[in-house]
Amino acid sequence: MILCDIGNTLLHFYKEGRVWACAPQNLATHKEALQGEVFYISVNPESTNALLEFCSSATDLAPKMQLESKYEGLGVDRIAACLGLCGKSGVVVDAGSAITIDLMDHGTHLGGVILPGLASYAHAFKSISKALDLPLNLRVDLKSLPNATADALGYGVLQSVLLTLQHLIGERRAYFTGGDGKFLANFFSNGLYDGLLVFHGMLAVLGA
Amino acid sequence: MILCDIGNTLLHFYKEGRVWACAPQNLATHKEALQGEVFYISVNPESTNALLEFCSSATDLAPKMQLESKYEGLGVDRIAACLGLCGKSGVVVDAGSAITIDLMDHGTHLGGVILPGLASYAHAFKSISKALDLPLNLRVDLKSLPNATADALGYGVLQSVLLTLQHLIGERRAYFTGGDGKFLANFFSNGLYDGLLVFHGMLAVLGA
Repeated sequence: MILCDIGNTLLHFYKEGRVWACAPQNLATHKEALQGEVFYISVNPESTNALLEFCSSATDLAPKMQLESKYEGLGVDRIAACLGLCGKSGVVVDAGSAITIDLMDHGTHLGGVILPGLASYAHAFKSISKALDLPLNLRVDLKSLPNATADALGYGVLQSVLLTLQHLIGERRAYFTGGDGKFLANFFSNGLYDGLLVFHGMLAVLGA
Repeated sequence: MILCDIGNTLLHFYKEGRVWACAPQNLATHKEALQGEVFYISVNPESTNALLEFCSSATDLAPKMQLESKYEGLGVDRIAACLGLCGKSGVVVDAGSAITIDLMDHGTHLGGVILPGLASYAHAFKSISKALDLPLNLRVDLKSLPNATADALGYGVLQSVLLTLQHLIGERRAYFTGGDGKFLANFFSNGLYDGLLVFHGMLAVLGA
């Protein structure tokens, strides 16, 4: 059984505890690995079509991804990550192209917040002015005031994201996933990184 | 005497207490208003050239914009806004294409932070995914958890910007300027909006 989480940028695969990622245009090179029953969720119709070209029998798990929530239009990847908590309470932080923050209370979704992903901030600064087209210094010391542009950008991004996370997480347990999840989890003593959270949610739905 | 603050997007003019803004491609329609001695500061070389086409004798005030600071590469518009405090201590928040936050202590610049401007966040979300291409709801209630995408985006942007501002402002007096300055100042009991802060700094340098 192969699981596929089709994101805004990449397709993420899971097979027997092993994971790999692939851009939609590079799927042909992963064709061998896609032998078997494939279950997917997707937030990107173009990438879904790319997958279906190679695995026409792949099954969309979306209809089975049910979460108790008042949220209108909650993305299926967020639902999967929340289901990955398997009934535990806490805050799910998926830090990818966007950073989504969802609060879960014993299997019920209480609401959620969206921030740009860390790379998206850099892209936003670049669009504003050539003077801000610099690599963000995300290793900046948040205890002192920046005195250079790369530090001022890094401080703005990191501090604003961390303060928002702290505000929403509070004393709760936080479960980080996504490309920048590991980096962000390090700032929280009550934070855990689980790169497989979305797949755990898909496996839970499949009863696997 | 006419003052001009050339920003990333628009040229902002000041004449005898009156202000107006103009896109560089529309300068011709403002030609009549540009009769007289013109002093400018600029962070946008293309727009500077556009101004100089109509006012070839306009004087760049940048060499006179001196601020005591360890910050490397502080933009001349930020220097002008800080000088606009005329020696008072406090935090200068210029909320335009970017949001710059600079701490001033009796005429000395202590450091600064940069965030994307509010419109830039919306643009960033749009670039991430079609599903996030929605108008941000910046009137969202920050006391309850969002349960719709426009609210989740608005909450993320507003809460992250406000928490960062609160963290940097603390008990200090804050001086807001720029297109979104008035909106943001409303969230701070110790916040003042002064749309002319940059021009006050230019006038201070001119001894006017």
